[in-house]
Amino acid sequence: MIRSFHFIGSVGVSPFHKWKKPLPFLFLQSLPKSRAASSPNEFPSFFVQSQSQRCFRAFQMSASRSESNPEADVASASSSAVLPSTVGPKPKIKFCQSCGGPTKLVIPDGEEKMRAVCTLCGRIFYENPKMVVGCLVEHDNKVLLCKRKIQPSYGLWTLPAGFLEIGESAAEGATRETLEEARAEVEVLSPFAQLDIPLIAQSYIIFRAKMKTPDFSPGPESLDCALFPLEDIPFDSLAFSSIFVTLKMYIEDVKAGKLKFHYCTINKRPGASPSDTHAFAVDNHLLS
Amino acid sequence: MIRSFHFIGSVGVSPFHKWKKPLPFLFLQSLPKSRAASSPNEFPSFFVQSQSQRCFRAFQMSASRSESNPEADVASASSSAVLPSTVGPKPKIKFCQSCGGPTKLVIPDGEEKMRAVCTLCGRIFYENPKMVVGCLVEHDNKVLLCKRKIQPSYGLWTLPAGFLEIGESAAEGATRETLEEARAEVEVLSPFAQLDIPLIAQSYIIFRAKMKTPDFSPGPESLDCALFPLEDIPFDSLAFSSIFVTLKMYIEDVKAGKLKFHYCTINKRPGASPSDTHAFAVDNHLLS
Repeated sequence: MIRSFHFIGSVGVSPFHKWKKPLPFLFLQSLPKSRAASSPNEFPSFFVQSQSQRCFRAFQMSASRSESNPEADVASASSSAVLPSTVGPKPKIKFCQSCGGPTKLVIPDGEEKMRAVCTLCGRIFYENPKMVVGCLVEHDNKVLLCKRKIQPSYGLWTLPAGFLEIGESAAEGATRETLEEARAEVEVLSPFAQLDIPLIAQSYIIFRAKMKTPDFSPGPESLDCALFPLEDIPFDSLAFSSIFVTLKMYIEDVKAGKLKFHYCTINKRPGASPSDTHAFAVDNHLLS
Repeated sequence: MIRSFHFIGSVGVSPFHKWKKPLPFLFLQSLPKSRAASSPNEFPSFFVQSQSQRCFRAFQMSASRSESNPEADVASASSSAVLPSTVGPKPKIKFCQSCGGPTKLVIPDGEEKMRAVCTLCGRIFYENPKMVVGCLVEHDNKVLLCKRKIQPSYGLWTLPAGFLEIGESAAEGATRETLEEARAEVEVLSPFAQLDIPLIAQSYIIFRAKMKTPDFSPGPESLDCALFPLEDIPFDSLAFSSIFVTLKMYIEDVKAGKLKFHYCTINKRPGASPSDTHAFAVDNHLLS
């Protein structure tokens, strides 16, 4: 389900402070729809106060996005489409993938966490977060975005990105996804950001890239592809919070005249349900 | 199985050039054992020639390590121990983890790759690379290393690291692993490196970190923990190529007086079997 929602940011001590470790954060609050509707483009007021290698940040923004997908599953995610879960991370392996025997949840010897263990062959199953890899393609001071032709977030704009496949590097995966979604042959230039989203067990790895030739067109998963000047990026119709944050960081770096590598965690606002995309916080923003 | 092996590096066009994309690389060749044995400590001659944001590098080194583990499985890896595979990445899901039905390998509609698909419920299973997260803990111009008490690479030195768990960020996972393996409470300072190893479907994410108090001791998976001055790092008895490369990059950055974020891919030498740890190349080294 795609919903419209709106944020206004503030800097300071907030309920997040107790919810997470006392780290720098971005605090986002819902705005009344009337206000947001009257000012759909009142972004970005995106402030940075550097402190050591961390940043305190605040957004004021209006956005439409979705990260919900009832069909998605933490343990089994499409390689070509980013399909976050609505149910939160928990073991879901009911049968052994090696022998077909039923599993049970136990804490194996020497471990501290509950795992699915086969009752027949004893195999232990581990579930781990997945990497989503993508490119921020630069061309003539513009960036390449794709309008999604698939759920979740059908019709919303994203950077070309998808799940990393077995046998490829993150840079290769990001290049492949860009070719698939935007039919653009690119060369990665530098790592730009890692954005972890623990709630849906995903980690976004975004590279800066350039097109080998200035040719692109929508792939089978895209309705459209376009180059956007930074001031025209459609922040009110981006597909995912990770893309929103990546582009905000990028614009800020470009304005500052220095591109850095960004690491951060995207957390839902305390109390928000896993499928509630109305609020998120950027925690533990670190720079290299 | 732990084996000793030795490398000497060279810079230039090599067979790698055709094997991989024509990207900057590190080319490593086996040395006759006699030569290596006579010069166990003839490292590091680790040269850097910057070109744009990339580096051409060469090692000359002697090392003992292993990344092999016959029991390991790409699809099911321990969260606490790094257990690379010797068999290379390929689908291994024989039974559906949801209904227990047998799977078959097919190319699903709209996809290009073979996937395990349940013959009863039709569920498609995707296998994806795993993230290994760890800390490079700095203290008084030294770094904290752990001597492994588990296979693979029993008795060899490593940075505290392990598989990222569902529900945690990479920084949280790296902090947890450091507490588990070195009983050290640390604070992450900045992202330092991402090292992809496509052959074993792993991506290492390493953070710089500092101890909150200067206390550490071996956890249950470590025989020993120690702070090493950079000139005394035991490069001849490191556990994994990823740790070797990370520490080489770090020393070089420290010498240059500027810490950067490094991205690279670690590839086995062409023709080497998946379990052959005698040779590797660092490809596509990018800096931010």
